[in-house]
Amino acid sequence: MHRAKPLPQYLIKRFQGWKATTYAENEPWYRHLAADGQYPRAMVISCCDSRVHVTSIFGAEQGEFFIHRNIANLVPPYNPDGEYHGTSAAIEYAVRALRVSHIIVLGHSNCGGVNGCHDMCSGNAPELEEKTSFIGRWMDILRPGYERVKDIEDEAERRSALEKEAILISLENLADFPFIANEMEQGMLSLHGLWTDTGEGALEHYVAGTGFVPV
Amino acid sequence: MHRAKPLPQYLIKRFQGWKATTYAENEPWYRHLAADGQYPRAMVISCCDSRVHVTSIFGAEQGEFFIHRNIANLVPPYNPDGEYHGTSAAIEYAVRALRVSHIIVLGHSNCGGVNGCHDMCSGNAPELEEKTSFIGRWMDILRPGYERVKDIEDEAERRSALEKEAILISLENLADFPFIANEMEQGMLSLHGLWTDTGEGALEHYVAGTGFVPV
Amino acid sequence: MHRAKPLPQYLIKRFQGWKATTYAENEPWYRHLAADGQYPRAMVISCCDSRVHVTSIFGAEQGEFFIHRNIANLVPPYNPDGEYHGTSAAIEYAVRALRVSHIIVLGHSNCGGVNGCHDMCSGNAPELEEKTSFIGRWMDILRPGYERVKDIEDEAERRSALEKEAILISLENLADFPFIANEMEQGMLSLHGLWTDTGEGALEHYVAGTGFVPV
Amino acid sequence: MHRAKPLPQYLIKRFQGWKATTYAENEPWYRHLAADGQYPRAMVISCCDSRVHVTSIFGAEQGEFFIHRNIANLVPPYNPDGEYHGTSAAIEYAVRALRVSHIIVLGHSNCGGVNGCHDMCSGNAPELEEKTSFIGRWMDILRPGYERVKDIEDEAERRSALEKEAILISLENLADFPFIANEMEQGMLSLHGLWTDTGEGALEHYVAGTGFVPV
Repeated sequence: MHRAKPLPQYLIKRFQGWKATTYAENEPWYRHLAADGQYPRAMVISCCDSRVHVTSIFGAEQGEFFIHRNIANLVPPYNPDGEYHGTSAAIEYAVRALRVSHIIVLGHSNCGGVNGCHDMCSGNAPELEEKTSFIGRWMDILRPGYERVKDIEDEAERRSALEKEAILISLENLADFPFIANEMEQGMLSLHGLWTDTGEGALEHYVAGTGFVPV
Repeated sequence: MHRAKPLPQYLIKRFQGWKATTYAENEPWYRHLAADGQYPRAMVISCCDSRVHVTSIFGAEQGEFFIHRNIANLVPPYNPDGEYHGTSAAIEYAVRALRVSHIIVLGHSNCGGVNGCHDMCSGNAPELEEKTSFIGRWMDILRPGYERVKDIEDEAERRSALEKEAILISLENLADFPFIANEMEQGMLSLHGLWTDTGEGALEHYVAGTGFVPV
Repeated sequence: MHRAKPLPQYLIKRFQGWKATTYAENEPWYRHLAADGQYPRAMVISCCDSRVHVTSIFGAEQGEFFIHRNIANLVPPYNPDGEYHGTSAAIEYAVRALRVSHIIVLGHSNCGGVNGCHDMCSGNAPELEEKTSFIGRWMDILRPGYERVKDIEDEAERRSALEKEAILISLENLADFPFIANEMEQGMLSLHGLWTDTGEGALEHYVAGTGFVPV
Repeated sequence: MHRAKPLPQYLIKRFQGWKATTYAENEPWYRHLAADGQYPRAMVISCCDSRVHVTSIFGAEQGEFFIHRNIANLVPPYNPDGEYHGTSAAIEYAVRALRVSHIIVLGHSNCGGVNGCHDMCSGNAPELEEKTSFIGRWMDILRPGYERVKDIEDEAERRSALEKEAILISLENLADFPFIANEMEQGMLSLHGLWTDTGEGALEHYVAGTGFVPV
């Protein structure tokens, strides 16, 4: 890969600062994790969005969360067809190899992927409907959610409802993975749905029978 | 999704602590990011592993990095076949919608995904060779890398070399995405390969013509 | 301007070195900033003193900080009288055009401007009291600060206290700008006071109700 | 100043990283500068713009440059009327107290202040013509420059020419300060005009009789 470039100097300097301070403070724990392996309590599935910082808002440290991040925190339907499934591979690793106790799906406000899906499904983003659009095809996972919210009149409300559908559809798809259903039945795994407003610093969680409520 | 559960109390408490402290300190910035959108400088592709904390080691804040995390920080080959491609969708969003300037592939020591690939390719993990293994099929992306390191005699050395192949193959695949090649040609995007030893707090970057060297 | 001279060769050489190294490493980011504009998170108001390097101590890169530097990091009172007000113009641009989230006033040890003010106010620098002294008239902004510290007996302590008054008076004046008050009320802007000892590499921040404390 | 807030944690962490690395490497020099005072060789007058990093492009260290930054790197005409003149105070301090050998005026591409002046002078920014606009009144300094470029037909060329006028007018105003004229006559001080294209990483300097040429 002859075209890759060295790391910009400012990141090297910041890394060296981290090494001399945070690393020095935590060296025994980091060495322990390296020698004995990770035992994360939860898997978190969140968006790639730079405004979502899942470790910071939960005060989480190295070793606590196994984190998968993709566009719009989506889990596709269970489909073991022998093709590449990055999200399903991450879930399989978390549940079967690491035996995490919780899977948390963390959605957020102003989600660009969800907005793209909204525009595509309402006929306003033809470029996302093309076969070659990776974003469009990925957001197809959320199409059933659009069907459930499309009659909400207020647009801002409809977009926000679609963000929550992204969480619910992912939870539904998760529950269909046989190894997840099995762990849940045995009381070894629970699923959780969260939505955060990154500007307001607000957090809501899904409560069965009630819907999303502030924590 | 009637089976989802509320968030465990310890995470609610930590969130509330964050809200009262970190959020309060940074409220104007978080509101600004919500109102005016994100302009991250770089996309980082790293592993889901709980021992890898990409923001912490670079002193990065909300808004700086667009982060995709999957098993073994892999990028599959460019293949716009209309199926779900979560990694390619994240890359497309970063480059075409956000116009990031850097894509950093960050690999790490003791990578469980890479070790699984090593065992599978050397005939020691038949369960990963099954069609239904999401992990096995995802790690197929790294098979060409195994071919390049399989003759290294020392096992620890071979496994470590395979971790670096995961970075190099991802960089090669990235450079084959037409919209990435185009941005690179115009001097608007550069690729970077990093490997971190999470126990030692060490960092190496790929330097063309030389290979991986400590920063 | 026929009397201006070409740049000294040693600076040309250093620039060419930077172009071949740092620029080459960061070219996509610099091009991106030029094409899409700057979105700095913070404005920093610091002294012109050559010993104060505001980007270095915060690992800050091009694009992060909008920086105004003047003698003794002073902000004059709000006074829209139609005259030239370079500091107020910089503040107006940062808040109204760029919508920064933080304004950081960064004072420092051994400040020549502050020491000049101390000597002037204590009657030991008659040349600074002349109408034609730009330094003296500029330091008039800090006169109310001298009144608050003049009874401190120890001279070194008194001078250091006056450096901190330069920060506090600037913060007070900033809070009187109507467009700043308005942004603060809406949770879109916060003010911060810092003092650094450049020789010791120490940093203190102002904490309401407590005063300056080491970070 | 009860409304100031503590420094955001991420900047504290980065500072602590700097302290443990860069400071530790340079401690003797920083202590020396604190104990014996600064002897900068040059004063640099540049813009506040976050894309202009004057120390980085010249490999400059603590102690080398006395730096004043304001909107559009402007020097107002000499006018010792007893009012606040932050720029003139900085110049007076550099020349009379520190006795710098060079004053470098560093302009740049895509300058927001210069563009504002262009729009104001061409009648397209009435808000900047109001008496209460600090930006507008500050940019009045550049009005004579607009008169010299207004007949250039191509708009991009005209804006770029106005950026260079900002440098030339500042140099002209500098040469009118009596203490500067005096130092120049005695061969103790020289003036320099520079313009940098921040996206291209290019640098031009003003050569008498020729105009701006690449270094």
